[in-house]
Amino acid sequence: MSRTIDVNSDLGESFGQWRMGDDEQMLRAVSSANVACGFHGGDPTTMLETCRIAAASGVVIGAHPSFPDLVGFGRRHLRVSPAELAADTVYQLGALAGVATAASTAMRYVKPHGAMYAAVAADPDLAQAFVRAVAAFDSRLAVLGMPGSEVERAADAAGLRFVAEAFADRGYLASGHLAPRDAPGALVTDPEAAAARVLRMVADGEVEAVGGGTVRIAAESVCVHGDTPGAVGIARAVRAALADAGIPVGSFA
Amino acid sequence: MSRTIDVNSDLGESFGQWRMGDDEQMLRAVSSANVACGFHGGDPTTMLETCRIAAASGVVIGAHPSFPDLVGFGRRHLRVSPAELAADTVYQLGALAGVATAASTAMRYVKPHGAMYAAVAADPDLAQAFVRAVAAFDSRLAVLGMPGSEVERAADAAGLRFVAEAFADRGYLASGHLAPRDAPGALVTDPEAAAARVLRMVADGEVEAVGGGTVRIAAESVCVHGDTPGAVGIARAVRAALADAGIPVGSFA
Amino acid sequence: MSRTIDVNSDLGESFGQWRMGDDEQMLRAVSSANVACGFHGGDPTTMLETCRIAAASGVVIGAHPSFPDLVGFGRRHLRVSPAELAADTVYQLGALAGVATAASTAMRYVKPHGAMYAAVAADPDLAQAFVRAVAAFDSRLAVLGMPGSEVERAADAAGLRFVAEAFADRGYLASGHLAPRDAPGALVTDPEAAAARVLRMVADGEVEAVGGGTVRIAAESVCVHGDTPGAVGIARAVRAALADAGIPVGSFA
Amino acid sequence: MSRTIDVNSDLGESFGQWRMGDDEQMLRAVSSANVACGFHGGDPTTMLETCRIAAASGVVIGAHPSFPDLVGFGRRHLRVSPAELAADTVYQLGALAGVATAASTAMRYVKPHGAMYAAVAADPDLAQAFVRAVAAFDSRLAVLGMPGSEVERAADAAGLRFVAEAFADRGYLASGHLAPRDAPGALVTDPEAAAARVLRMVADGEVEAVGGGTVRIAAESVCVHGDTPGAVGIARAVRAALADAGIPVGSFA
Repeated sequence: MSRTIDVNSDLGESFGQWRMGDDEQMLRAVSSANVACGFHGGDPTTMLETCRIAAASGVVIGAHPSFPDLVGFGRRHLRVSPAELAADTVYQLGALAGVATAASTAMRYVKPHGAMYAAVAADPDLAQAFVRAVAAFDSRLAVLGMPGSEVERAADAAGLRFVAEAFADRGYLASGHLAPRDAPGALVTDPEAAAARVLRMVADGEVEAVGGGTVRIAAESVCVHGDTPGAVGIARAVRAALADAGIPVGSFA
Repeated sequence: MSRTIDVNSDLGESFGQWRMGDDEQMLRAVSSANVACGFHGGDPTTMLETCRIAAASGVVIGAHPSFPDLVGFGRRHLRVSPAELAADTVYQLGALAGVATAASTAMRYVKPHGAMYAAVAADPDLAQAFVRAVAAFDSRLAVLGMPGSEVERAADAAGLRFVAEAFADRGYLASGHLAPRDAPGALVTDPEAAAARVLRMVADGEVEAVGGGTVRIAAESVCVHGDTPGAVGIARAVRAALADAGIPVGSFA
Repeated sequence: MSRTIDVNSDLGESFGQWRMGDDEQMLRAVSSANVACGFHGGDPTTMLETCRIAAASGVVIGAHPSFPDLVGFGRRHLRVSPAELAADTVYQLGALAGVATAASTAMRYVKPHGAMYAAVAADPDLAQAFVRAVAAFDSRLAVLGMPGSEVERAADAAGLRFVAEAFADRGYLASGHLAPRDAPGALVTDPEAAAARVLRMVADGEVEAVGGGTVRIAAESVCVHGDTPGAVGIARAVRAALADAGIPVGSFA
Repeated sequence: MSRTIDVNSDLGESFGQWRMGDDEQMLRAVSSANVACGFHGGDPTTMLETCRIAAASGVVIGAHPSFPDLVGFGRRHLRVSPAELAADTVYQLGALAGVATAASTAMRYVKPHGAMYAAVAADPDLAQAFVRAVAAFDSRLAVLGMPGSEVERAADAAGLRFVAEAFADRGYLASGHLAPRDAPGALVTDPEAAAARVLRMVADGEVEAVGGGTVRIAAESVCVHGDTPGAVGIARAVRAALADAGIPVGSFA
């Protein structure tokens, strides 16, 4: 088995004096950093520091745009129009690209955050507005998202590269959707369990569903959330398991 | 006399449902638009619309970054560190550049707004941090600012193009500084008076000071504020007076 | 006919340098002012000024809390939890009560704004959370809202006074709901038409529906939106028509 | 020796998903909680939770208003007008009072935060505006602040109770001012050292200055910062040392 797998994580989500996650440690374990753009986390100083460390660690940088909802951390659905979502997207893409340039690196992809991730996965109008905004900004950017989602369809239609991701630390329903955050089995917090799940995803293209059964997962990238309890331990275990199995970790970009 | 003069104005300063100035009319009168970047005005949707109209009007776009102070409209001094100012600058430059790209146009220069304008004019450390941030983002950008200021010195030292501006609608003290906003003579609201001042600035390189006497002004660009009462009338009068005098209006970029 | 009718309007919705509506004129025409609390409009300085003018005009002050969405002016639905809505409500109630106290007046009622208004009208859990928050803050406050809504039921159940309102300047569907803002007939902008509608509502308890037919409306208060085009003209026409009909305008509080 | 001493700490400074300090532990060690009001930290949900725990712990609640600077945590000086500072103060006092009421407790005092603390200590116009705002909201509130400061003078003049505080975990200059945060000796992080300093302050009214010498300190309240490294340990050590010395800890309110 020779294919490379990407490991991505949401990073740079501190804000002002508030810390979120252990970015320095995570940046040693991942190959792609989804960097917050100021709308759910990530002030300019934090973003600049995150890009500098990512660049020094050889980690590829992507934008992690959000609905404008700092107090809700971008996790609450906001009923925006397609035009508002498009404008919010190019603003955040540009902001992170600017910060990345100032850090002597570059932004290579985009992965929407939280409620925006769910919105462009489910709503074709929002998905299309999002993809058009990305393409209008830079059509070489890849879009990282949920396989089988509206945003995958929209990216395909627009000729943007789509990269499917799976979650190391989130439970899947038999339908292939993520288990809601407050449901039993929604979070996988044991590093070895998460690592075993990732290996099975990568090697066999499947994972055990919450409540039993198996879900087909074809992913080029595996996400480890930075704010899951023990996130660094999970990322390290995943990376170690992949290394043991002879599967190189590396960016898709 | 054959030199071209630029006319610039602060635009795109509406925010959400709130309107500021008459951007459509101003964009017919100016050659350069200083577009707000979200920190003192200008949400993403407004910025995108402003860039689209500017592009359609043949007006050159510049960034108008600010201290993060929406409620104070960026007019209150905030004691930021040089590092904070630099990060805030590249974030806003990037954001506007992203929006401009999505509007199929480009950002050519930067002019700091309000209290940030005053801060980089007066403080050498902040001026240097600002100029370095601009250069790290894109060293082809021009910096528009107050002649004789710290930011001019910093731009010269960094090899960035500096463009000196004069104000059509603000009174000058004999020292060459602007009269404070709440002082008598601080605002010139009569269109003909403003136009006459601009002609004298451009033709003779001088303007009458508040309280008498004359101030030397060497400017490549003349600023008409969008939020001065009667701003559109002033901009039109300035443009007409320059046309009558055979002085072409055009961007420095 | 001797009953008094209240005329309310959303006021104090300016923010920082941005103006919204003509509060001074509206405060001469209404008996109740729904004052923005900072989450969709209304910074502290604006709130204080609005309360001072309202007090001087003999206008009763109510709170106009919103989802936290300044850029969307509180008009976009945000999927908050009941606990978040309750906390946001008491924060805003307290803030306006504090400002009103400093202006030597008092806050007498609450009317939720925009998307929050719609949310507590339609969702029983959010309605209950809202009403409990109001009661926990001050059980003497009246709740102003849509008749027949979930918030009316919740207020009744909690023993809070509920005041039903009708809209002078919005079209009604035959169902009794408001016509969506972007539908034909959604806005009534002719002052005489609005005044005639109000008279019919007050005298006969009914209004013509968009598309024909009649809707029953039993209202103690009539709302004139401050940001409808020609709002001041509508408010004056409504007031004059009520005066001509011998119906006194006065607060319900 | 029988006098009671108050121990206060800045609490409720988490924001949305971001945690700051260990409020539950600190609330077991202090007698007064300076609760953030949303402008530098403390969203409504956090404020409500903090007030509930404080009430359950028998800790007295005070407001901790700030300049509006979330990203700078209220630590950067913002050049506000006295009128702006007054309006910002009553807004935040009201908001916290509302939240406290909903938590079935009450707000008893006010201590300005960060740069606002420094501003009202040093600037007589801002001090007077602040004190008048507090008095206009509720003249029974005490003002907690730096002894010998402008805000003490303004409180005295206005007939508000002023409570002088000393800092357990901050170094003092021989002048009686705090050592700047980035100067050597600015932070006292050893719990035993902090406890010994507090005992000397309370018993002898003095403390050793940074660089040698002694500073006179007459304080009714001792502040332990919640975000100092090891804050909980310091608070516990201070409390234990006071207990050992037979000095009861209790609110001044």
